[in-house]
Amino acid sequence: MPKMTFKAKAKSENPMKSVIETSHFKMIVDEPERMGGTDDGATPMEYMLAALAGCLNIVGHSVAQELGMNLKGLEINVEGDLNPARFMGQPTEDRTGYQEVRVTLHPDTDADQATLERWLASLEERCPVSDNLANETPLKLSLS
Amino acid sequence: MPKMTFKAKAKSENPMKSVIETSHFKMIVDEPERMGGTDDGATPMEYMLAALAGCLNIVGHSVAQELGMNLKGLEINVEGDLNPARFMGQPTEDRTGYQEVRVTLHPDTDADQATLERWLASLEERCPVSDNLANETPLKLSLS
Repeated sequence: MPKMTFKAKAKSENPMKSVIETSHFKMIVDEPERMGGTDDGATPMEYMLAALAGCLNIVGHSVAQELGMNLKGLEINVEGDLNPARFMGQPTEDRTGYQEVRVTLHPDTDADQATLERWLASLEERCPVSDNLANETPLKLSLS
Repeated sequence: MPKMTFKAKAKSENPMKSVIETSHFKMIVDEPERMGGTDDGATPMEYMLAALAGCLNIVGHSVAQELGMNLKGLEINVEGDLNPARFMGQPTEDRTGYQEVRVTLHPDTDADQATLERWLASLEERCPVSDNLANETPLKLSLS
């Protein structure tokens, strides 16, 4: 398979708000007013959860089709906990990102338990966003 | 600091498209038509890049303020490569997620090189999304 490259370009509108452009969509990332933001869009940590849930929806449907599993609907709840101390520059032993991410899948299907378990295992194995969260990903920051 | 919990709820509209609700925002995740989607929103992999860029904008401004660095503007380019083979169920040795994520920061500032280097190091240390990508994060999937 040829390698795929995804790109995004962010421009700061104020210290908390940025407008992100991808191939042909615009997204606004911001923080709520209580965090000093202008509340014009979801937070970065919510965008990350949206990426995960959206990815699991797509992979969930692909895998269901392969397994011959009748998936009539899918709801996905995602949540993550973090300690904002390090982000805010305060001393802490805790990491700065999500300490754990929990996903609960609600598939509308008549599949048996064994099929559901195969489906769930394939999701973890195949979802790109799950992979990038669960495992280390080389991140290279540089100044222009 | 008290622990913060972020949540998102996704509902599938079709095999590729989901509508994600967070505290008070809606986001649409989809795929382009050539991937079998309905092209109503950015892809999950683009959402992940948006999360990273949006987070670096916020942390970049916080850290600049702490360093007394005059940050008049900030543009951030983010890109990541992946091999879609595993995601598509084809045999491969490659991981399914981004193999590498590259970030180029374009700060508009008159800060000296030493300050810029401290700023960049603090970004990597403090940005929650960077942490979740660069390091392992426990991910717990379950069926309702």
